[in-house]
Amino acid sequence: MSGPAPAVAAVRLAVRRGLADLEPSDLVLVACSGGPDSLALAAATAFVAPRAGLRAGAVVVDHGLQPGSAEVADDARAACRELGLDPVHVVRVQVGERGGPEGAARSARYEALDDAARRLGAAAVLLGHTLDDQAETVLLGLARGSGARSLAGMPVRRGLLRRPLLGLRRADTEAACAALGLAPWHDPTNWHDPTDSHVPNWHAQTLAPATDSPRPAVPAPVRSVVRARALPVLEEVLGPGVAQALARTADQLREDADALDGLAADLLAAARRGGHDASDDAARAGRDGEPAREVGLRVDVLTEALDAVRRRALRAAATEAGCPAGALHRVHVLALDALLTDWHGQGPVDLPGRVRGARAYGRLTFRPPHD
Amino acid sequence: MSGPAPAVAAVRLAVRRGLADLEPSDLVLVACSGGPDSLALAAATAFVAPRAGLRAGAVVVDHGLQPGSAEVADDARAACRELGLDPVHVVRVQVGERGGPEGAARSARYEALDDAARRLGAAAVLLGHTLDDQAETVLLGLARGSGARSLAGMPVRRGLLRRPLLGLRRADTEAACAALGLAPWHDPTNWHDPTDSHVPNWHAQTLAPATDSPRPAVPAPVRSVVRARALPVLEEVLGPGVAQALARTADQLREDADALDGLAADLLAAARRGGHDASDDAARAGRDGEPAREVGLRVDVLTEALDAVRRRALRAAATEAGCPAGALHRVHVLALDALLTDWHGQGPVDLPGRVRGARAYGRLTFRPPHD
Repeated sequence: MSGPAPAVAAVRLAVRRGLADLEPSDLVLVACSGGPDSLALAAATAFVAPRAGLRAGAVVVDHGLQPGSAEVADDARAACRELGLDPVHVVRVQVGERGGPEGAARSARYEALDDAARRLGAAAVLLGHTLDDQAETVLLGLARGSGARSLAGMPVRRGLLRRPLLGLRRADTEAACAALGLAPWHDPTNWHDPTDSHVPNWHAQTLAPATDSPRPAVPAPVRSVVRARALPVLEEVLGPGVAQALARTADQLREDADALDGLAADLLAAARRGGHDASDDAARAGRDGEPAREVGLRVDVLTEALDAVRRRALRAAATEAGCPAGALHRVHVLALDALLTDWHGQGPVDLPGRVRGARAYGRLTFRPPHD
Repeated sequence: MSGPAPAVAAVRLAVRRGLADLEPSDLVLVACSGGPDSLALAAATAFVAPRAGLRAGAVVVDHGLQPGSAEVADDARAACRELGLDPVHVVRVQVGERGGPEGAARSARYEALDDAARRLGAAAVLLGHTLDDQAETVLLGLARGSGARSLAGMPVRRGLLRRPLLGLRRADTEAACAALGLAPWHDPTNWHDPTDSHVPNWHAQTLAPATDSPRPAVPAPVRSVVRARALPVLEEVLGPGVAQALARTADQLREDADALDGLAADLLAAARRGGHDASDDAARAGRDGEPAREVGLRVDVLTEALDAVRRRALRAAATEAGCPAGALHRVHVLALDALLTDWHGQGPVDLPGRVRGARAYGRLTFRPPHD
């Protein structure tokens, strides 16, 4: 007797490793859209979980964005039940507008998964993202040009969410579905024929067109176009290892961003100590969504720090003071930084969100311009 | 009377800013190939330097790699003299093989520029790299997938070298040459017609095909192909701001890499203190090119550090112990790291260059496998 097809074995192995630390009878939920990645994940989980003493169910999120989405969700539910997953829930979500169409759908999806996990008492929610998704995420981050965090891709784990297939290619999940006789659904908004050079509406979304932005409003590429065109061309031009290289890049830059963000938070705390402490204001601003009145930071503490750490701390302080993070660009951060490291008595720095950064009496403060 | 063409003014302004800190009568040298970037740079420097009280000359490097390279160098020399630069030196270099054809030519070029600067007593050497070059460098780094440093691009300054045009596009230097009636030379190995989909020999070079490498030997893309195909497609697919986004990415990741490399060096020094100190061995290895016999690092010190810092320290320690940096991949570093953070008595880790990392008695040591 021959074993399972190599792709099926590879997906099962990845899932087994991804669940190895769970306790007997824990419930894992597969987030299943019916697409090839999540269907292969559902099949592997249905196979692996009972053998590991775990219970396995699924959640199908119906975004309600396309005609027929309820039928697609029903088909995915039926496929998950057929695979032996139980319970299988379909959750219909309301997609807002914040963060653009893809961002809003993502937020609604993750909230629904979190809710379902809590309601069902799940120990983990499995997502079907592959190495290809990770590579696409890095390319989308490159187009933003906003540093390590935007290139850091998706973590293998965060909270209840786990992505056991991040080391596999999309070709593997498609091969696994084919080998198992599963018929995945192909999302028409998620996939364009790579041979079709006319990709409509890819610039439907516009990035941060804030009037005070120093960058022109740039049409934001959507993932589907990166998938259909950018990654294939890069693989052709840069070599066949590009997707893996992008995924390795993401792993390393995520580590870097975690380290530097942590050091920046420490620096900010130190710069606030020993004087008027505005961190309470800042914390309140975070809670109420209203700008804090003032954040005073010690110049002497900030100037001793490494550039990468200090500039992250300045960005965090400006955001806490009420600057919208999406409108706060590197030029703003560098202008604030010049108040510290290239100080020659220059005037205050106007920031997005009607926040003004100024240096006086050895402190850097953030406040509304007409305060 | 109208002023200079906008592109000419932009290049001059960039050069003026790039030279603002020099002292009267300092000598600046333009590294000029005769191509549009360095020819526009030479013209702007010839205009700006005397008005700023500086002396300006040029160095033309003849790599001797193509038939007729001596004539190209002579033409560049003549163009520089015509612009009023003085002295203008042509330096013929011997290009080795280490680092592949582009890397070897780059090494020879920088060495020749450094020599010329020293010989002529120059205060700065100006290079004509533009924002497009920076974006291409980031894409080439992405194809390697080896972290922030490989994406960090070229600094505006390092030592005597300065790159005043890093904020300008290649289209600006070409427009400046056209406006000034200069006829730049177009290097046939440096440029392919973007409409020509058949780009020959782009995989002539192969990256680190070490037999102990866990990655397959990947054909290394050369810059010319990135220039001709990758960047144009990304600009088309991801939006017109991609080159700028890549350049911003480089700036931020260079800051990050500088900060984390510095912290890793501090960590390594701390981990070596308080026991057998192998840093002398390591230093000797660096000087003699022979592997050090042993580098002992305190596990307790290393495990307290942030992942990004600790893993950089491990990479540095392994390289000092004799691992060839190009063959030391992330999987090796992660295996070493597991000796610290996922310790369950596992055996030693074999590294490229016949170095073995092992944990014993609270120390991580590196030594030859049969030592």
